[in-house]
Amino acid sequence: MLPKFNVLTPEQVNQVHEQSMKILSEIGVEFSYQPALDVLQAKGQRIEGQRVYFKRQFVEEQVAKAPAEFTLHARNPQNNLVVGGENIIYMPGYGAPFIHDVDGKRRNSVMEDFDNFVKLAQMSPNMHMTGGNSAEPTDVPDSIRHLKMVYSSITNSDKCFMGSASGYEKAQDSIEMAAILFGGKEVIKEKPALICLINSVTPLKYDDRMLGALMAYAEAGQAMVIASLVMAGSTGPATMAGALALQNAEVLAGITLAQSINPGTPVVYGSTSAITDMQTGSLSIGNPEGALFTSASAQMARTYRVPSRGGGGLNDAKIVDAQAGYESMMTLMAASVSGINFVLHTAGILQYFMAMSYEKFIVDDEIAGMVLRYIKGIDFSEDKFAFDVIAKVGPGGHFLTQKHTRQNHGKELRRATLSDRLSYDGWGKEHLDTNQRAERKWKAMLAEYQAPVLDSGVNQALCSFIEKRTTEIKD
Amino acid sequence: MLPKFNVLTPEQVNQVHEQSMKILSEIGVEFSYQPALDVLQAKGQRIEGQRVYFKRQFVEEQVAKAPAEFTLHARNPQNNLVVGGENIIYMPGYGAPFIHDVDGKRRNSVMEDFDNFVKLAQMSPNMHMTGGNSAEPTDVPDSIRHLKMVYSSITNSDKCFMGSASGYEKAQDSIEMAAILFGGKEVIKEKPALICLINSVTPLKYDDRMLGALMAYAEAGQAMVIASLVMAGSTGPATMAGALALQNAEVLAGITLAQSINPGTPVVYGSTSAITDMQTGSLSIGNPEGALFTSASAQMARTYRVPSRGGGGLNDAKIVDAQAGYESMMTLMAASVSGINFVLHTAGILQYFMAMSYEKFIVDDEIAGMVLRYIKGIDFSEDKFAFDVIAKVGPGGHFLTQKHTRQNHGKELRRATLSDRLSYDGWGKEHLDTNQRAERKWKAMLAEYQAPVLDSGVNQALCSFIEKRTTEIKD
Repeated sequence: MLPKFNVLTPEQVNQVHEQSMKILSEIGVEFSYQPALDVLQAKGQRIEGQRVYFKRQFVEEQVAKAPAEFTLHARNPQNNLVVGGENIIYMPGYGAPFIHDVDGKRRNSVMEDFDNFVKLAQMSPNMHMTGGNSAEPTDVPDSIRHLKMVYSSITNSDKCFMGSASGYEKAQDSIEMAAILFGGKEVIKEKPALICLINSVTPLKYDDRMLGALMAYAEAGQAMVIASLVMAGSTGPATMAGALALQNAEVLAGITLAQSINPGTPVVYGSTSAITDMQTGSLSIGNPEGALFTSASAQMARTYRVPSRGGGGLNDAKIVDAQAGYESMMTLMAASVSGINFVLHTAGILQYFMAMSYEKFIVDDEIAGMVLRYIKGIDFSEDKFAFDVIAKVGPGGHFLTQKHTRQNHGKELRRATLSDRLSYDGWGKEHLDTNQRAERKWKAMLAEYQAPVLDSGVNQALCSFIEKRTTEIKD
Repeated sequence: MLPKFNVLTPEQVNQVHEQSMKILSEIGVEFSYQPALDVLQAKGQRIEGQRVYFKRQFVEEQVAKAPAEFTLHARNPQNNLVVGGENIIYMPGYGAPFIHDVDGKRRNSVMEDFDNFVKLAQMSPNMHMTGGNSAEPTDVPDSIRHLKMVYSSITNSDKCFMGSASGYEKAQDSIEMAAILFGGKEVIKEKPALICLINSVTPLKYDDRMLGALMAYAEAGQAMVIASLVMAGSTGPATMAGALALQNAEVLAGITLAQSINPGTPVVYGSTSAITDMQTGSLSIGNPEGALFTSASAQMARTYRVPSRGGGGLNDAKIVDAQAGYESMMTLMAASVSGINFVLHTAGILQYFMAMSYEKFIVDDEIAGMVLRYIKGIDFSEDKFAFDVIAKVGPGGHFLTQKHTRQNHGKELRRATLSDRLSYDGWGKEHLDTNQRAERKWKAMLAEYQAPVLDSGVNQALCSFIEKRTTEIKD
């Protein structure tokens, strides 16, 4: 593995930390959820209305309680994931309400799309888990959407997955379903099986929906990403240093709350900070400033000894074109070389989180494979220097027929799975661009998909739970 | 500026060096050009036939004579370039015999294409020089092509440019023309104005054409990139460590020759090592292994205290699609974060150096701008933390209308020049992909192009020289 790329000096890390502490103690953070305020008040923090003024020492003590790494358990133990340390975890996009097709046409995403992205992530060697909300199933009532999504995640894949973060109740439902799968809430309290995404409301707020979910997961000992998305220039300062300090303050406030509820709760320091494009006024995520926020965030998280989340195949494109490619490569590469551990949105995203695309999923899967190969680095064991082979071949010779070449080519050099390396004439026979080749590939993959076997008793128990909860929710 | 990303440990750098020394002393390098053999023999190296066995100490001594950085002079002194140190220099592709159009159709490149790429590079704020052979003018006889290209480089731009490396005579012609522009050969010997690209013939050979050019440039005190392109798996071992040691040996052999001819000759350590795709048997340059070669090469060059060349917008795509985007971003980003100084092939290349594309030039220009912004890093001066602004806005507020935002947005956040950041509906009005937008842009740029003024006496002298040489060459 390559060493981590550090974009900040130790002094700059310290500056960001100091500024964040000042923000937390002097400006404070609003929590619009009474149970969260009660927890922090009980811990001696000053509260005015919904605004909490954090004591510096308290924040530092609580953050220190978060584990440096933790294991997320999958129903197939071979797919268990260690979150933190040297590890990198890729997964599909999250929360997109639209699907863009191969021609750039848009439609609402539906349950079948969600199922399909779970299946594609299950089949991909580069996707380490299936994520949690790749495409919003807009054809399912919002009140029970989370039940369907968790069920799909469990049945269509045996990799790790994410649960709902839409308030205390839906979080509880997700946890109950994970408990059914793994044999009880005590089991998953010991061996976390679920992770969710908690977002602050920038600047300096957390809403009741997110805080309810945070409390449910913390109480159950399940994992969570606590993330801030500062839009530099609108929800935060236009200056990157200011945006970074603001983000850091928000994330530390969330981690502090989680540790106050249940010390040792597995948390991930999350950043998706990005910029406001001044020509359009819109969010822009596929840019160098966002890549810098991600790189800097990896380093802040390392300083706090907690795993990090950031980056992904982030871009502002509406169709799977060169822009989609170069923006996504920049943001995924920055995240990966900087040591980000948990990469939501690795595959499928278009238009600043607004859409998923099947073709983009396939493109990002190739990008992910390339980046994973890059960060693996170069093997410098003695045999790999091949001195005797170079001597034998000599000036002007050829290595193609050497045994050493046959033995090492497949191990050292990654095989492309989507990229075209043909001659011009070879390519010209079909004249397909990458978007068109990607369409062929995802269709072929879904045609070959086979669901991993699930114990029928567990399946039955999950179905019964969903039925019961659906009835209760409707009443 | 961000710190440099080092992908090798100091021990690994040393391993590569040691293996290269063993290759140079025990296997040797073939030089098929008697004047070069004479120089090395006079310096006490053992020679058998055309093969030179280098003494380790001699190589190390000669390489140490190369300058750590040097200035390349442009006719507009504002475009002078310092090669080496913290600097990064971008320029168009080099040596492509074909042009791919917006639809992926192929044709031979002609003189007008060469002129156009000089003009586009002149206009781009991200291209620091115009390069030397962006598109082969196949409509001009090979014997006088170099005269036309140097003339175009001088008249269509006032940025630095490259000269011919096709043998001693053509190199001399390039140097004569630079001398006419700058006021004599003694002037440019003091202030180098020309740089050329010398390639080894892997494995372990240099041909007469390249060696002739190397000697001409070295004698005239002009700069040169000395580069090796090992194709791992065919012209070199399939193992990356072996390929890197082989490349290093070849480059050091070339640098040693240049310094033996004229100590202090400005040289650049060049790498374009890449892989052999085993499915097609072809060269592949848009991949993580190539990016790793580039990153490692930057570090080797730093160890030898010479400037480095590597990377670019490298890719294997035939049309400007997602693959062209993601491969080019990976290779340009790896080069740039690793501290490569001189980036040939930054803009325009498709299909492993075989083609130039106007649309790709525009795409790469945007990629170059993004990468330059990324490596600039984050400004951490006190005012940039914007604490007072964050305090004033407070939880739930908005920064858009703050004076601090207006003052800093344009300075901190790069404006996209090609990438689309519109809403879906905004984009959908024209529904253009990046390839199509790029076509519009280069056409608009060329329509607006204005040549920088050149002294008419100099112009006349250049034309007379070309006329004289054309007659001589034809006779």
